[in-house]
Amino acid sequence: MLERFKPLPEDTIRVTSDSLRDAIEGIFLAMGNSSEDAAEGANTLIMTDLRGVETHGVSNMLRSYVDGYNNGNLNPTPDLKVISDAPSVATIDGDQGLAVITGPKVMRIAIEKARNTGIGSVALFNTGHSGGIGHHAMLAVEEDMIGLVMTAAGCQVLPTFAAEPRIGTNPIAIAAPARNEPPFLFDAATSAVAGNKTELARRVGSNMLPGWLANLDGSPILEEFPVPQRGETYQLPLGGVREQGSHKGFGFGMMPEILGTLLAGVQPSMLDPEAGQRHHFAAYDISKFTDIEIFKDNMDAMLEKLRTTPPAPGEERVLYPGLYEFEQEQERRISGIPLHEEVVEWFENVSGELQGVPQLVKM
Amino acid sequence: MLERFKPLPEDTIRVTSDSLRDAIEGIFLAMGNSSEDAAEGANTLIMTDLRGVETHGVSNMLRSYVDGYNNGNLNPTPDLKVISDAPSVATIDGDQGLAVITGPKVMRIAIEKARNTGIGSVALFNTGHSGGIGHHAMLAVEEDMIGLVMTAAGCQVLPTFAAEPRIGTNPIAIAAPARNEPPFLFDAATSAVAGNKTELARRVGSNMLPGWLANLDGSPILEEFPVPQRGETYQLPLGGVREQGSHKGFGFGMMPEILGTLLAGVQPSMLDPEAGQRHHFAAYDISKFTDIEIFKDNMDAMLEKLRTTPPAPGEERVLYPGLYEFEQEQERRISGIPLHEEVVEWFENVSGELQGVPQLVKM
Repeated sequence: MLERFKPLPEDTIRVTSDSLRDAIEGIFLAMGNSSEDAAEGANTLIMTDLRGVETHGVSNMLRSYVDGYNNGNLNPTPDLKVISDAPSVATIDGDQGLAVITGPKVMRIAIEKARNTGIGSVALFNTGHSGGIGHHAMLAVEEDMIGLVMTAAGCQVLPTFAAEPRIGTNPIAIAAPARNEPPFLFDAATSAVAGNKTELARRVGSNMLPGWLANLDGSPILEEFPVPQRGETYQLPLGGVREQGSHKGFGFGMMPEILGTLLAGVQPSMLDPEAGQRHHFAAYDISKFTDIEIFKDNMDAMLEKLRTTPPAPGEERVLYPGLYEFEQEQERRISGIPLHEEVVEWFENVSGELQGVPQLVKM
Repeated sequence: MLERFKPLPEDTIRVTSDSLRDAIEGIFLAMGNSSEDAAEGANTLIMTDLRGVETHGVSNMLRSYVDGYNNGNLNPTPDLKVISDAPSVATIDGDQGLAVITGPKVMRIAIEKARNTGIGSVALFNTGHSGGIGHHAMLAVEEDMIGLVMTAAGCQVLPTFAAEPRIGTNPIAIAAPARNEPPFLFDAATSAVAGNKTELARRVGSNMLPGWLANLDGSPILEEFPVPQRGETYQLPLGGVREQGSHKGFGFGMMPEILGTLLAGVQPSMLDPEAGQRHHFAAYDISKFTDIEIFKDNMDAMLEKLRTTPPAPGEERVLYPGLYEFEQEQERRISGIPLHEEVVEWFENVSGELQGVPQLVKM
């Protein structure tokens, strides 16, 4: 993550990951989730925060989930309905459950199918927020599989040349195991900048960069400028403008719509503004394609080669996707998870208001 | 494609697509391919040219294929070896055949597997050039399926922050059927600009734009400049620089390595410079996920919504991926395929040198 999105050290309080996990679990329980589901949801969010993905950890997201349960938009006891089922694929109605919780369950269905036939894929629709989808993809890695997850949701991103938004920031994540190197984990919004980054930037008082956002008439903003108010701008696809490949960012942003939304038999947000999130889950059983040991040897050799690539002038080092996240996890398990003081304050208020939500333990 | 890559009208000669197809087929036959394979290869290339994808049609590629057959790098009679096979997946050794020809065959294997289990995926390695992989993805569309194809090859693109290239321009293509709207077809290199675009730009005397290429020390070139000589620059991932999301372009560029190269059990070009191309093919049988008629209705509604989006100031219209390609195909079937006069000259020379290569018919 760019430095400009990170909270200033003096505004940050470190808490133990265990106490944060327990607090999240308590909040999910208080919202009416089963104990199994509360643990699942806490695991998704804590892993995301441990990996340093602040945009999708508790800081940005948990409060909106609480709002969702309180206003009835989120169903704490969803009944997952299998709409169609075949040896390698399925479509599942998420019954307005939070995909932070249902996502891992559906990924495990894809993994089981992959174990039988080599690949498993599930389209999931009608859900709340997915959390960081890299976490769901990583569940496949634990089974020596490749995980691929895509999410389609919302309508804030302009197609190339467009004056009105048509797609969401629609992220794509892929994860693959190695032997000794940290696993490969790529998880990125297909917009120039993730939607939640604007919130982080507002909290830390940082500017937006050229090519990230557009005016409401669709014209790309090509200079640096302060974080706009909600509704003052639209987002641009990865690439920003046509000459820099925004048509590719737009195309990648359509992949989750095709493989999530449309494949699930439902309509995208551009046609149905009330639509819940839609997701594509796939697991590839590596052992059905090749020898898993050869795969891991090659992964190690490739990831080491990437990691040790000489850096360009002025740069420190080359990171492959997943390396920073792995290092963050090692560091944060020991030193705790840094939260903005405003987030810690929110947790303290919630502990007071809700039954059974333990206090955060500061480090 | 940006205007800067298109040949000037006065340098262009239009030929009938049938005569161009026949000439290509004749060349493949003269190179030692079976008649079935020659027809397959001609079909891939002519469809790519009909869709207006000049970078991967005959202009840029056919001459290098002839060189490959002549110098023994390409095998005109490859024996495709199935290395592993499971109900939904397979890995296949391409035996140094041109993937322009073997790609469609392997896609059909993925389609057959999808018909049985809902999804089929094949990793193909040890091949020559794939041609425009969007063509292979479109074969699934003809069967009411979604096609997904990725190719990993070469080593010209810098990871973010890197001083040395580690991956190829590694394209990703996805195609999906609609009912009345032209089908969705996205096919893009994951580099800021496709490798073959440099060749096109040289032919038409156009400049490179900021953020496309880097100096040999890895520093991104952030101003406009004339087409460099081969070996004077490296390519940047989509996004160009970190602040504009090049780490996302790099991550997308790694997907074909993971799902093509590594899943096939072989090494990427960064470790094995002699490696042939590696590919990932997948077909999704839509009818196993949802009602195909609902899918097509939703596709039509979504694509129409995209196509009719009001344009930003100064822009003509919004294109969804595949719309331009469809329009080009309609137009070129009637008005012929525009070739640079230098390419037409090459064909005339080849017709003279090789037995059984018919002349192009100019329009």
